[in-house]
Amino acid sequence: MGSKKVTFDDIARHTGFSKTTISRFFNNPGSLTRKNQEIIRKALKELNYKENKVAQILATGETDFVGILVPNLMLHYYSEMLNQILLTYPEYGYKYIVFVGSEDPQVEQDYIQKLLSYQIAGLIVMSHSTPSAQLAALSIPIVSIEREDIHICSVNSDNYTGALLATELLQKNGCDIFIHINTPTPITRPAYQRINGFRDYCTERGLRHELFIRETGTSASSITAAMLELFNEIENRYPGQKKGIFFSDDTRANAFLNVLLRKYHVLPEEYRLVGFDNSPIAEQAVYPISTVGQQIRLIAHETVALLHEKILEYRSGADWSAPPVHRVITPMLYPRATTDDGGQ
Amino acid sequence: MGSKKVTFDDIARHTGFSKTTISRFFNNPGSLTRKNQEIIRKALKELNYKENKVAQILATGETDFVGILVPNLMLHYYSEMLNQILLTYPEYGYKYIVFVGSEDPQVEQDYIQKLLSYQIAGLIVMSHSTPSAQLAALSIPIVSIEREDIHICSVNSDNYTGALLATELLQKNGCDIFIHINTPTPITRPAYQRINGFRDYCTERGLRHELFIRETGTSASSITAAMLELFNEIENRYPGQKKGIFFSDDTRANAFLNVLLRKYHVLPEEYRLVGFDNSPIAEQAVYPISTVGQQIRLIAHETVALLHEKILEYRSGADWSAPPVHRVITPMLYPRATTDDGGQ
Repeated sequence: MGSKKVTFDDIARHTGFSKTTISRFFNNPGSLTRKNQEIIRKALKELNYKENKVAQILATGETDFVGILVPNLMLHYYSEMLNQILLTYPEYGYKYIVFVGSEDPQVEQDYIQKLLSYQIAGLIVMSHSTPSAQLAALSIPIVSIEREDIHICSVNSDNYTGALLATELLQKNGCDIFIHINTPTPITRPAYQRINGFRDYCTERGLRHELFIRETGTSASSITAAMLELFNEIENRYPGQKKGIFFSDDTRANAFLNVLLRKYHVLPEEYRLVGFDNSPIAEQAVYPISTVGQQIRLIAHETVALLHEKILEYRSGADWSAPPVHRVITPMLYPRATTDDGGQ
Repeated sequence: MGSKKVTFDDIARHTGFSKTTISRFFNNPGSLTRKNQEIIRKALKELNYKENKVAQILATGETDFVGILVPNLMLHYYSEMLNQILLTYPEYGYKYIVFVGSEDPQVEQDYIQKLLSYQIAGLIVMSHSTPSAQLAALSIPIVSIEREDIHICSVNSDNYTGALLATELLQKNGCDIFIHINTPTPITRPAYQRINGFRDYCTERGLRHELFIRETGTSASSITAAMLELFNEIENRYPGQKKGIFFSDDTRANAFLNVLLRKYHVLPEEYRLVGFDNSPIAEQAVYPISTVGQQIRLIAHETVALLHEKILEYRSGADWSAPPVHRVITPMLYPRATTDDGGQ
């Protein structure tokens, strides 16, 4: 920068108003006539005063800060979503204050209070700690992604359709038994629909199927141990049958594939696998893993676009009691080496 | 929140000062006596005025915002570093405004200017677009991580020692020929020391070695194609010899391992591999990949601690022309299935 700081004296001299009037403009603009506010705003521009954003915020009550609450950045899904949200900066101009989840929900709630005190324009919530009813009570523009969203606006993947696509691909591969491996998931989370989609697809078509809901931990070694145990169970239960397995995510699909490869060195004909998320690990596996890809870039863009709409509504003083908007983005199937192409 | 907004009238009534004096406190606190400033600060606390951070910033010129510039969040290294920096919030209280790199360096530079106008307390820089001389000229506290840092403070991994550890492990595995695979890297980047460490280790011990510096792109498919090409070259050049390969990072090591597994289904005795970074992909590979782990959590903590020191110095008006501080964190070796244990 290097430009000299513009003082209230400079603005007073430039406009012909007293310093007290200039103070009033910043601290209580409504106490000045609209015309005088305009004169001062024009002077601020001419003096390049806009560079002191803080004074500007105080004058208008508006910032271009948006808070983002994310549960962690260890999962590729979250880091890529954050990446894509941050990349919207040139388009929307919002600056993002990012908070990564704490074990302690109180830390997140204190953080939200601090964000409010900075007069943030809105909030994007991916973390699960604060119920949507409590978030809605903050009365600021909020959009959530893939979390419980009863009382707040949201943009989610169509998890149900994603599960249908995955199971359909396994059916086209001529599997005898259909298996879904997932972790315990609250029914209010959008991702729960993966379980519903799998179950409904199999039930409606009379396909033999089984659901394995298992706690696996999040470390590579605990996931591998859990997948080895499941592999032994599945081998014992369905010998000689063609097993089509749909996994809750690519990390678990990859761990299961590695168990198979350590035992058989190649992917046996008897196993067909589909993951979820289209993470890099799916593409980088020895046998690139078929997967359902969430359109992360699109979800991020829809989220910021919806938040922007809500911020404009909020600022225009529009009716703030409208029911929350829920937008849904269709996921895409990526057939790869862990399935036959299913005629596609 | 829900607490009623405290106005200048309230503060004036509470302190017995005029509203003009209160205005002056916020806009030019130095024009009031120290004693009167204290009285108003006490009143602000009593009135719970602290919740309007913006006014507070204007009064003190101090924020607890720290800007973070990161080149991308697709590489696990960056997303995990960001994760660990954000997790320091409960300890230091800094709130992080995050910017993810743009193709266009001008976008980053405009963003920095905007951050300055918000009176951020400091800056953490991981992106490469802005030379350190230009960053130093901003005259605010800055700490960089793993980028050119001649004129600014930094915290880096000891890349040189990391390369020594990797090459030593390959030597203990009784390899005949030592290979380092890397991408074109500017000599001013800390990561360049991986090349130097490998070369020095081999030269000093008279080990036969070769350096392959190749552009590989960043997509899974372009990296795989580049590794396949290198594999063919290395097979032709060193048939029947035990090849010890040290890779610039785990992603490329994993792609090379997959090329081997697609051809041989097991890891041949003739190949020993070591990656760099200790990314999840190294641990999750069919043969978990030996690697040099950067202590990301420690680097993140050192970075915030050093920045915090610099911010306190800056605020105390201490000498600002001191030479930049460079701190170095020792990496750790993780021997896994792609090497023998090397007697450890």
